[in-house]
Amino acid sequence: MINREQITADYQLIQDEICAALELADGKAHFEEEKWEREGGGGGRTRVIQNGNIFEKGGVNFSAVHGKLPDSMIKAFKVEQDDFFATGISIVIHPNHPLVPIIHMNIRYFEMPSSFGEGQKPVRWFGGGIDLTPHYVIDEDARYFHAYLKSVCDNYNHDFYHRFKLWADDYFFIKHRNETRGIGGIFYDRLMENEENSWDSIFEFSKSLGRSFIPIYTELVKRNRDKTFTELEQQWQYQRRSRYTEFNLVYDAGTKFGLETNGRIESILMSLPPTAKWLYNYQPEAGSEEEKTLSLLKKGINWV
Amino acid sequence: MINREQITADYQLIQDEICAALELADGKAHFEEEKWEREGGGGGRTRVIQNGNIFEKGGVNFSAVHGKLPDSMIKAFKVEQDDFFATGISIVIHPNHPLVPIIHMNIRYFEMPSSFGEGQKPVRWFGGGIDLTPHYVIDEDARYFHAYLKSVCDNYNHDFYHRFKLWADDYFFIKHRNETRGIGGIFYDRLMENEENSWDSIFEFSKSLGRSFIPIYTELVKRNRDKTFTELEQQWQYQRRSRYTEFNLVYDAGTKFGLETNGRIESILMSLPPTAKWLYNYQPEAGSEEEKTLSLLKKGINWV
Repeated sequence: MINREQITADYQLIQDEICAALELADGKAHFEEEKWEREGGGGGRTRVIQNGNIFEKGGVNFSAVHGKLPDSMIKAFKVEQDDFFATGISIVIHPNHPLVPIIHMNIRYFEMPSSFGEGQKPVRWFGGGIDLTPHYVIDEDARYFHAYLKSVCDNYNHDFYHRFKLWADDYFFIKHRNETRGIGGIFYDRLMENEENSWDSIFEFSKSLGRSFIPIYTELVKRNRDKTFTELEQQWQYQRRSRYTEFNLVYDAGTKFGLETNGRIESILMSLPPTAKWLYNYQPEAGSEEEKTLSLLKKGINWV
Repeated sequence: MINREQITADYQLIQDEICAALELADGKAHFEEEKWEREGGGGGRTRVIQNGNIFEKGGVNFSAVHGKLPDSMIKAFKVEQDDFFATGISIVIHPNHPLVPIIHMNIRYFEMPSSFGEGQKPVRWFGGGIDLTPHYVIDEDARYFHAYLKSVCDNYNHDFYHRFKLWADDYFFIKHRNETRGIGGIFYDRLMENEENSWDSIFEFSKSLGRSFIPIYTELVKRNRDKTFTELEQQWQYQRRSRYTEFNLVYDAGTKFGLETNGRIESILMSLPPTAKWLYNYQPEAGSEEEKTLSLLKKGINWV
């Protein structure tokens, strides 16, 4: 039976693997690490890369925290006051190049240790997801991204991709703009043991998703990093980043939770872009690539 | 007895006065106007100025809306389902120059017309405020700003400045950063007739505050517009704008209300800066002007 020590150790290892591979892909910048401790228990390793060849700003954060459940968690999870333990990796990368997409990945595990006694149903679950936010949607990249995620999911359960893709469409949605953050991906929460999935298999799925980040993203970087781009495309990138900011500050559950519970603020907000622009009432030209991208920022597109 | 038609007309006039004076101060850019209608009733005039000599992006919005109370208002105001009417002016200006401050002004009026029958206590109130967000806090400008607001307040009630200054300190506060948005100003809500203040006097106060915007801001522009500035100061300005963005998207009541009630999104988010930057874990140098500014972004400073 998997336990929190094993999950913590494996997540830390995955953080190490991802940081090493991103530094290699960038070829210039290195991660700065901040180790931090949480007042109520536990802590984390925030790692941020800035001003690289490829990556303008990116964070690969690991944390493992425990203690008494904060009030907002009690409300969100509809549970009684109790101890909790939570660990996870959270990544957001903002590249320099407007044709290289923004990417986000998160894998996480939560448990309430007091429920682990004999004859009790343990309260524990996994969650996570990967979603892609291209500044310009490139069809073959979008198909590649979703096909890769489907193959990761299919190794564990043939329902996962379909269910978690719909979930991502709903979750990564900027309601006030009536547009999705990007082309989605997969998102899941409260994944627990049942007749179909053992704890071991769910944990393996979580790690497998974490380890898919590097092959997926390095491929997308490789495909686009040497393309030429214009000043107009760069400006559009900054405008798309402002939508990313709107999503993260207004809707993202992890960000809201962090702000409400006095998390380490620079770790929580590492997801925000290095530069973002808000132009009033900007409308892309009819028939432009920008307009095409907007037309693809909607739920329910089947990319596989 | 003042009525909504009169308030609406006077607020529209104040919007016109402010836009004319800002165009004059800028000397280059002109306001673009969008007239919009609200599905449930009423509408507004959004006016935005961009890429001026002085003003990089600013909005001076008027609206007068009515209809059935949205659910979020019923909850916020703790009232029953009913008709409402609300009108107001809302301004945010982001200047080009890092030594010219960001400014925000709002005056507004709300009523529930069904409460206006004989023998009933009418449900109606005024609200508003002005607050200043200097990228660099300049002591004499801060004192000038607060002294001006105090003199506006003192013409109507000698308690107003003290009460509304404290209210602004609490309202314009970025909790997750433990810093105020800027140097505050005044903020008030649900101001109603009582032994001390008649409806006429409260309405005059509202208009007087609206009309103080131009003398206050043009003076602050004049004092600073011709100063030289460095690239570092410009970068710091972009970083301060990102804090402004955090406040508006995470805390500002008007913005949240607009997003939740499907308001005209470009009018609501005109307050967001043209360019903002988020640098990871940025710490100003010891003894720098940037550090001095941070040290003054706290509640409870007496500027008069």
